[in-house]
Amino acid sequence: MQLITSQIKQSMSGASWIRKMFEKGAELKAKYGADAVCDFSLGNPDVPPPAKVADVLHDIADNAVRPLGLGYCPNAGLPVFREALASYISKQQNMKVAPKDVVCSVGAAGALVSFFRAVIEAGDEVICPAPYFVEYGSYCGHFGGVLKSVPSSLPSFEPDVEAIASAITPKTRVLLINSPNNPTGAIYSIEVLKRLAALVDEVNSKREAQDGENARPLYLLSDEPYRAFAYDGVEVPAILPLTKFAVVLGSFSKTLSLAGERIGYIVANPEMPGGDLLVNAVTLTTRTLGFVNAPVIGQQLAAKLLDETVDLDVYDRRRKLMAEVLTNAGIEFTMPKGAFYFFPKAPGGDDIEFVNALQEELVLAVPGRGFGMPGYIRLSCSVDEKIIERSAAGFAKAVEKFKQ
Amino acid sequence: MQLITSQIKQSMSGASWIRKMFEKGAELKAKYGADAVCDFSLGNPDVPPPAKVADVLHDIADNAVRPLGLGYCPNAGLPVFREALASYISKQQNMKVAPKDVVCSVGAAGALVSFFRAVIEAGDEVICPAPYFVEYGSYCGHFGGVLKSVPSSLPSFEPDVEAIASAITPKTRVLLINSPNNPTGAIYSIEVLKRLAALVDEVNSKREAQDGENARPLYLLSDEPYRAFAYDGVEVPAILPLTKFAVVLGSFSKTLSLAGERIGYIVANPEMPGGDLLVNAVTLTTRTLGFVNAPVIGQQLAAKLLDETVDLDVYDRRRKLMAEVLTNAGIEFTMPKGAFYFFPKAPGGDDIEFVNALQEELVLAVPGRGFGMPGYIRLSCSVDEKIIERSAAGFAKAVEKFKQ
Repeated sequence: MQLITSQIKQSMSGASWIRKMFEKGAELKAKYGADAVCDFSLGNPDVPPPAKVADVLHDIADNAVRPLGLGYCPNAGLPVFREALASYISKQQNMKVAPKDVVCSVGAAGALVSFFRAVIEAGDEVICPAPYFVEYGSYCGHFGGVLKSVPSSLPSFEPDVEAIASAITPKTRVLLINSPNNPTGAIYSIEVLKRLAALVDEVNSKREAQDGENARPLYLLSDEPYRAFAYDGVEVPAILPLTKFAVVLGSFSKTLSLAGERIGYIVANPEMPGGDLLVNAVTLTTRTLGFVNAPVIGQQLAAKLLDETVDLDVYDRRRKLMAEVLTNAGIEFTMPKGAFYFFPKAPGGDDIEFVNALQEELVLAVPGRGFGMPGYIRLSCSVDEKIIERSAAGFAKAVEKFKQ
Repeated sequence: MQLITSQIKQSMSGASWIRKMFEKGAELKAKYGADAVCDFSLGNPDVPPPAKVADVLHDIADNAVRPLGLGYCPNAGLPVFREALASYISKQQNMKVAPKDVVCSVGAAGALVSFFRAVIEAGDEVICPAPYFVEYGSYCGHFGGVLKSVPSSLPSFEPDVEAIASAITPKTRVLLINSPNNPTGAIYSIEVLKRLAALVDEVNSKREAQDGENARPLYLLSDEPYRAFAYDGVEVPAILPLTKFAVVLGSFSKTLSLAGERIGYIVANPEMPGGDLLVNAVTLTTRTLGFVNAPVIGQQLAAKLLDETVDLDVYDRRRKLMAEVLTNAGIEFTMPKGAFYFFPKAPGGDDIEFVNALQEELVLAVPGRGFGMPGYIRLSCSVDEKIIERSAAGFAKAVEKFKQ
């Protein structure tokens, strides 16, 4: 019997090589002990949540056992949380946003899928710079959308605006960017972002001139779960005001180390003509996709914590240490300005081979092809400094194998 | 500009008449005061969660501020919760289930959507008895599935097995049932369930005989969020063991009054040939649909509360009181055996007209056509007994208008 669809079967086998890496990691940990393995493969934020999380959770506990204490809430989120989010986003994006412009989501992933459901028809294209978070393809693919990636400029890993302009077709519905970036750590400059926004405006003007009210817009969709993670004083530019067709989404998974509770948001530029329809559509798809509403304990929690973040200095120290380790090993890389990833070149040029060589030294990494860019590897610094230090010998030995 | 797809636009306008009912309700509450309005339109469980919820939440608060305290967990759920669920389900379904057979989901809705994504191809059919929870159509429709409803037997509201048998085509992928039922309160008898299971087995045998390994099975999918809500000693039969192709899902939204936190599960009959593939596929779609994992605070909470329920006697008392009110008003209904809904006939025959007449008396109900069955109304008893008492005059007056 064919229990599942052929498309899902294919997704499962397509993912299996990356799963193999994880399984290999688990095997190595079981064999040599978790402490012996330097695991840079996972993006699970390990810095403890802010201390205030405990206080707020105790308050929630005190108020939970009453009628509707943990009951359904409006699909777009608790009014108190939407209000708090609106002022949080207004500050962050240098643009006045109202609660009605914001939908609380089940993490950034839930926001992306709800948005794609609202705007993507079968055959529509989503363009994003490579490398990219590989789940983007699945997120739009559920509804017949097709992800088209465009190689980023090197060595900055900023989007290549000309190449993106050439890739846009009448079917392109979304230009999806992610800054600070997973997996490269790049923070896109305001110059590049303005050019992307101008490109979006130009495309939309042409479409409107041609098809009038029937024109379907190109959205600039900005995925920003790492916005708070910027180092060396680099500023993360506000993207929402850059074009009326900007939509921004984010989550508290990383800033509050709250990844398991799945709390995020999505906001449309309040000046988008008729934009309420889009926000209402995302509210509807949030419901009909089975999210229903973002988890209500997490919403109550995040509403009280919007001014807090985990200790970001911890991530900065790790970044500097990892840079040292890679430099000493002779591995080529672009210093990340944000997030907590490195995306160095694979010595020898083959990412799988280098990841395998690292595994032999009990160092775990993800091949760049898992992010649409072979020839590189991704390292996640969501581990203790001690582990980064300890990995130095492993990196050096692995590199040796590729010297001629 | 066409900001959203035409399909979603249609969903939004299709839903608007039921939204109008809610808006009307809000308007009436604003005008006459919330206390003056008897609102039977919402299914939001209002009985307080068990007292233990507070204790467990305090424990969670004490343990949250540590590395990964609220971090990502495996897509299928926390191992400790899957284990607890496996023994909970084993008891409930009279069948030994292992943790690997269970996936934790974002409520029952998340389980349904993840399951449909794994098994539905465009054009596939989902058959369910009418009346039914109207979101089922959206849930399978995201992936091109088509909901076909088959009128239930009257006045029992049990599935009409012959009619269902006639409705099955080679494209039928899922037979979806819901007992105790929303909106009727019916509990399906073991006799009817066995006949449905035999029908599923018969269809699958034929398909396998015809197409061998390429055959696509017909699943018996049982949506059971109201399993604990059974009255007068009526037993809710175990459905999982009835056919190898049974899949059961449930949630803690109603049993623990935890609807906002979105915690549910889905489990496949462990004897399904190759069933691990289905469970792994649902784990994958849980991830790629953006659920990622069920909210981790809710998982930790529910894991400690599987032996608890809200005070079910409260619901039983309301049921008896509502039956009295309806009887006195001369409204025809089938006494619900479970859940917390009534699905009486609309005096006069037009559900919208009767709902409007009730509104004039400040009594809010949902027209039966919102559940695929015009001519009836749904009343939700998730309100205090006082409100049910107070509604008696309103029901009586509304009925008067339809007497000739």
